[in-house]
Amino acid sequence: MAQLKRVGVLTGGGDCPGLNAVIRAVVKTATRDCGIEAYGVEDGYEGLVEDRIRPLSYDDVSGILTAGGTVLGTSNRGSPFGYCEPGMEEQGPQDRAESAVANFRKAGLDALVCIGGDGTLSVAHRLGQQGIPIVGVPKTIDNDVCETDVTFGFDTAAQIVADAVDRLHTTAQSHHRVMVIETMGRYVGWLALVGGIAGGGDIILIPEIPYSLQSVCEAVRERGRRGRRFSIVVISEGVRPPGGDYVARQRVEESHEQLRLGGVGVWLARTIEEMTGIESRAAVLGHLQRGGTPTARDRVLATQFGREAMAAAARGEFGVMVALKGNQITSVPLEKVAECRRPVDPECQLVRAARSVGTSFGDD
Amino acid sequence: MAQLKRVGVLTGGGDCPGLNAVIRAVVKTATRDCGIEAYGVEDGYEGLVEDRIRPLSYDDVSGILTAGGTVLGTSNRGSPFGYCEPGMEEQGPQDRAESAVANFRKAGLDALVCIGGDGTLSVAHRLGQQGIPIVGVPKTIDNDVCETDVTFGFDTAAQIVADAVDRLHTTAQSHHRVMVIETMGRYVGWLALVGGIAGGGDIILIPEIPYSLQSVCEAVRERGRRGRRFSIVVISEGVRPPGGDYVARQRVEESHEQLRLGGVGVWLARTIEEMTGIESRAAVLGHLQRGGTPTARDRVLATQFGREAMAAAARGEFGVMVALKGNQITSVPLEKVAECRRPVDPECQLVRAARSVGTSFGDD
Amino acid sequence: MAQLKRVGVLTGGGDCPGLNAVIRAVVKTATRDCGIEAYGVEDGYEGLVEDRIRPLSYDDVSGILTAGGTVLGTSNRGSPFGYCEPGMEEQGPQDRAESAVANFRKAGLDALVCIGGDGTLSVAHRLGQQGIPIVGVPKTIDNDVCETDVTFGFDTAAQIVADAVDRLHTTAQSHHRVMVIETMGRYVGWLALVGGIAGGGDIILIPEIPYSLQSVCEAVRERGRRGRRFSIVVISEGVRPPGGDYVARQRVEESHEQLRLGGVGVWLARTIEEMTGIESRAAVLGHLQRGGTPTARDRVLATQFGREAMAAAARGEFGVMVALKGNQITSVPLEKVAECRRPVDPECQLVRAARSVGTSFGDD
Amino acid sequence: MAQLKRVGVLTGGGDCPGLNAVIRAVVKTATRDCGIEAYGVEDGYEGLVEDRIRPLSYDDVSGILTAGGTVLGTSNRGSPFGYCEPGMEEQGPQDRAESAVANFRKAGLDALVCIGGDGTLSVAHRLGQQGIPIVGVPKTIDNDVCETDVTFGFDTAAQIVADAVDRLHTTAQSHHRVMVIETMGRYVGWLALVGGIAGGGDIILIPEIPYSLQSVCEAVRERGRRGRRFSIVVISEGVRPPGGDYVARQRVEESHEQLRLGGVGVWLARTIEEMTGIESRAAVLGHLQRGGTPTARDRVLATQFGREAMAAAARGEFGVMVALKGNQITSVPLEKVAECRRPVDPECQLVRAARSVGTSFGDD
Repeated sequence: MAQLKRVGVLTGGGDCPGLNAVIRAVVKTATRDCGIEAYGVEDGYEGLVEDRIRPLSYDDVSGILTAGGTVLGTSNRGSPFGYCEPGMEEQGPQDRAESAVANFRKAGLDALVCIGGDGTLSVAHRLGQQGIPIVGVPKTIDNDVCETDVTFGFDTAAQIVADAVDRLHTTAQSHHRVMVIETMGRYVGWLALVGGIAGGGDIILIPEIPYSLQSVCEAVRERGRRGRRFSIVVISEGVRPPGGDYVARQRVEESHEQLRLGGVGVWLARTIEEMTGIESRAAVLGHLQRGGTPTARDRVLATQFGREAMAAAARGEFGVMVALKGNQITSVPLEKVAECRRPVDPECQLVRAARSVGTSFGDD
Repeated sequence: MAQLKRVGVLTGGGDCPGLNAVIRAVVKTATRDCGIEAYGVEDGYEGLVEDRIRPLSYDDVSGILTAGGTVLGTSNRGSPFGYCEPGMEEQGPQDRAESAVANFRKAGLDALVCIGGDGTLSVAHRLGQQGIPIVGVPKTIDNDVCETDVTFGFDTAAQIVADAVDRLHTTAQSHHRVMVIETMGRYVGWLALVGGIAGGGDIILIPEIPYSLQSVCEAVRERGRRGRRFSIVVISEGVRPPGGDYVARQRVEESHEQLRLGGVGVWLARTIEEMTGIESRAAVLGHLQRGGTPTARDRVLATQFGREAMAAAARGEFGVMVALKGNQITSVPLEKVAECRRPVDPECQLVRAARSVGTSFGDD
Repeated sequence: MAQLKRVGVLTGGGDCPGLNAVIRAVVKTATRDCGIEAYGVEDGYEGLVEDRIRPLSYDDVSGILTAGGTVLGTSNRGSPFGYCEPGMEEQGPQDRAESAVANFRKAGLDALVCIGGDGTLSVAHRLGQQGIPIVGVPKTIDNDVCETDVTFGFDTAAQIVADAVDRLHTTAQSHHRVMVIETMGRYVGWLALVGGIAGGGDIILIPEIPYSLQSVCEAVRERGRRGRRFSIVVISEGVRPPGGDYVARQRVEESHEQLRLGGVGVWLARTIEEMTGIESRAAVLGHLQRGGTPTARDRVLATQFGREAMAAAARGEFGVMVALKGNQITSVPLEKVAECRRPVDPECQLVRAARSVGTSFGDD
Repeated sequence: MAQLKRVGVLTGGGDCPGLNAVIRAVVKTATRDCGIEAYGVEDGYEGLVEDRIRPLSYDDVSGILTAGGTVLGTSNRGSPFGYCEPGMEEQGPQDRAESAVANFRKAGLDALVCIGGDGTLSVAHRLGQQGIPIVGVPKTIDNDVCETDVTFGFDTAAQIVADAVDRLHTTAQSHHRVMVIETMGRYVGWLALVGGIAGGGDIILIPEIPYSLQSVCEAVRERGRRGRRFSIVVISEGVRPPGGDYVARQRVEESHEQLRLGGVGVWLARTIEEMTGIESRAAVLGHLQRGGTPTARDRVLATQFGREAMAAAARGEFGVMVALKGNQITSVPLEKVAECRRPVDPECQLVRAARSVGTSFGDD
């Protein structure tokens, strides 16, 4: 703790509500509590490789708590390892990693706070192995980072999904339609699940629970028989057309082409309309789930994460990620987080609660 | 006024925030002020043709002011004129129109309040010619009904566009991207224009102002030269790929296929990325713009429209549509509204104001 | 137009959503369209008297469209005329006015855009008489500026009132209570009227329509007889206890003391509870109505006002205020605006519409 | 589990976002999963004593997920124990308790789900001792129920506080003012703490941390010295004027009178203005924190609580309250919850995080 003098902070991967709140908490905690100088790395690892590192003062981070995005910029590219961008061939991965470490040392940094999802945190773990003292902060609207109950950004994204479902609900009802809402979630279904429960979705389809089209359409028809002439379907983008039945199998081939173009939500709306004869529409929420001001809960969680990340660094505790366990912020080894993804357990309380209030997961 | 005893009300066309507020005002004004019985026609003209008409009491419309959608249901189909749905061949258009008039008389109605956009109002005009006393109420999020300054629903839709632009703005900025936001507006650009100004869009493309891809890309690059590494483009769904230049002409052919699938927003984002090398993404707002609770302004406007429509009916003033002119609700002949569409004037104050604050319309 | 080289802009009076949007439009229009340098005066007239004037570049106003408040600061004090603040006695009003004019000249300004309500605009008119070329922009959440259909900021404030009424509605209903919501509006009732209609207020009390407590309580009881065990009352802060009846006259005296402390909303809730025996609560919205991001409509209106104000200045048109008339921004003589206030006409369409949907104004 | 046939549900105490979501989950789980009939008790314990109990079907609770308030009604009065309302003297507490039990049996109920805060849950515990099989659900925007990490309704209230702080922030900044925001929280500071951190409050005062006026004013002045001409103070309604210093002691006496009238927020704003000379204003959020649609998180939590409460009843597990511990819903003995209140620990991570980002608790 005594020897820590300069800490760097970077944000990697996709946009996520609360990034600025973490940056603010790291910088304020460093400069105010710990007498440590803070430096910002621009555009994620890209800025580390390219030596774009600048001082961040207490005033620089004043007033950014509520702002979406990240004042540091971010990048989905720029990893010092692994893959190369076109036009970067002149500099191989190893050179890039060496540049990253060299720039870190040149800037006189003693520690690096890496805010990001599984990709960013995996890179952070490898940088740690190369000698950079790392503290990770789990960020993603997908909520799939291991070893933490939740990531910041997820609550805001779930709120956006719920708000969208509320809006689309009245249209579905007025027009007696099936409305399919496609959420983010390439690998896990947290966002569709939680946003879907919050919005009162009638059918929720997530990658973790295999479904059949027959079951989905039967749930729609069953609602019709009970006097509900509309249905709300919430589906993760990561859901794939099912292969377990004849009709669907035919579809799989055509669907690959269609999925590439319009997404799984558009495909599902068309398919339900064909199979049930009920007018169906799709809404793809896309980047709307990533931006804007964070919810109160995400602002608080991000502030706590930033504070505890800096506290860990000040204690000399590296190679870890801050994490929420119950009501406590704690820290976990980065190696347990890297290359790992936390799926929805199909038997968990959330899924059971959704089923109890009448939601179908297309697996009945 | 003395002889009016029963008024019917129906909502036609796409969903629109404020429909319930109009229904409530019509029914409350009828039953409370005028001692007139109110009846609701279900699912637009479909319910008129199929004789689905039911009484609406003061209590039936209590508490619906803030609710999106329409308690009467609506339909994009069901016109008693013109086109036939598959499976309806057994009943020709003329039969349908006769059914509509017959059901109107059978229910003992003296007047019909038709709430809808240009399609619904054109049908209303023709029903009027067949002897049904009509009062129209201009509804559409597109704001393209003639002879009124504004339609209810538009303010809410514009607010939704502005909120979406706000959200996407931070992501564009953090990732140094071009973000293309596609709004509704098949024929007119009001929604992209007003939502775009409200969101501070850097480039706004509307059907009324021809644009070139060169000019759009130059606006993006010019921002880059001034240190803005991102741009926000707001585009009406009704904008078509331009045909005025060689590069674009090539694109037109491929684009027709693409437009069919992903929409003009997706096409434009890809094109800008190809032409400028700057990462670009699209967000298609779609049905999110149609549903949910109306803004305060739309609630008030819808209430006024409903009240004045009923007042016109009570005065025996038919074949008219209520309209906003300045600060006054007035009424205009339906025949001037039918088969008419109100575009944005490219020289109007709104466009000039947008240009003055730096917005490009792709026509420089 | 040729000779205009430097324009100043200031914001005076209370906070209001859209101030930054006007400043942005003035500065961008000046620097971009007209090649004119823009200067900001800090904290309203205070900054003019105290010579706190600084250049404003295109970049200075970038990104402030959506932000509440004013980057220039504002002040309710600081008028160069009329009244003196404690501690300012050494400098009399005449000195202050002379300082204002002298500082204006010293800064080399050719025109001054004054954004404010009736107070600010009246001072602007007097400064104009002292030789400063003035263009006014009508700002106030109260909507009481003469010669314009509406002021910017009002739509946002009305939306906030409607949102608050929505929230309080469920509590009133669940608890079978009377809920009194006090809005701003010291002299006029626009905000209570429009926010009240939008929120579905059962009783709306505004300064322009005299009311009796008997009538208010009877409206509450009548609702109870029709099965509504709750009522929503929206009241302008400017409403005073009525003096027209014996019970109330007694109350007037005690009420003066109470009004001083808790406001008219608190007084009314207590009085209704005493007179009807129904549990009643008050919510005073206060400054919540003044701040935060503007609605889409206010952002657009503010942008148009700012643009047209600068255009008027560039045309050499001074001693005017920009105004909305119907759908057009126009300009009106400042002298017609100064010392003037626009009340609600008790016979206007808005009031009639509210009555038609069952709202009582306490005057039945 | 086999023998459970009829379950009753009631909501007690103040309004709280999510009540309807719990009711819906209880009723849907009962009727769908468990084949149990559900009954609603009106207006909390009042309805139990007065025998106002009615069947609730699956359809009765359809569409209420997003609605604020409670379809069952609630009451702060009506406890079958303890205190008597005026006019209820003819029926003593013991009679009332006996009526409650008798009505429960008469309706053929086998279990009662009581949704409420500490008051409601304490009464539930006593009813349990009288032989009614009880499952409690912890509700309160104050978040002070023991043995659960959080109550439903709190997240929504904290979001409302944060939104209000956001709004007031711009006004404070534009006018260079101190803005005091008074939140609910008569005994505990959770709402001021979490809402205050989320809103970036500069000073947060809660009942659990003693403060001095000198320290508060010094924090305001210190901000001024660092160029911040405004401050945001968030204060729980339960905070009392401090008695630890001379100046304040004088104030305590006058303040008791003032507190009775305008609340502690108004008192504090006046006091800060007197002590620092900086213009100060207060905003009292009051009932705005209790109503309206719940956040996504509260909708999900309420749904889970309702489902697990019904599941506990179906298992024959009574005399318990459902509770959130970490990520799991569990159940705890009601006797540990009754007559208990969970305060903020002044040394907890939340308080430490707030201090690290520069928030003063007035105790420096």
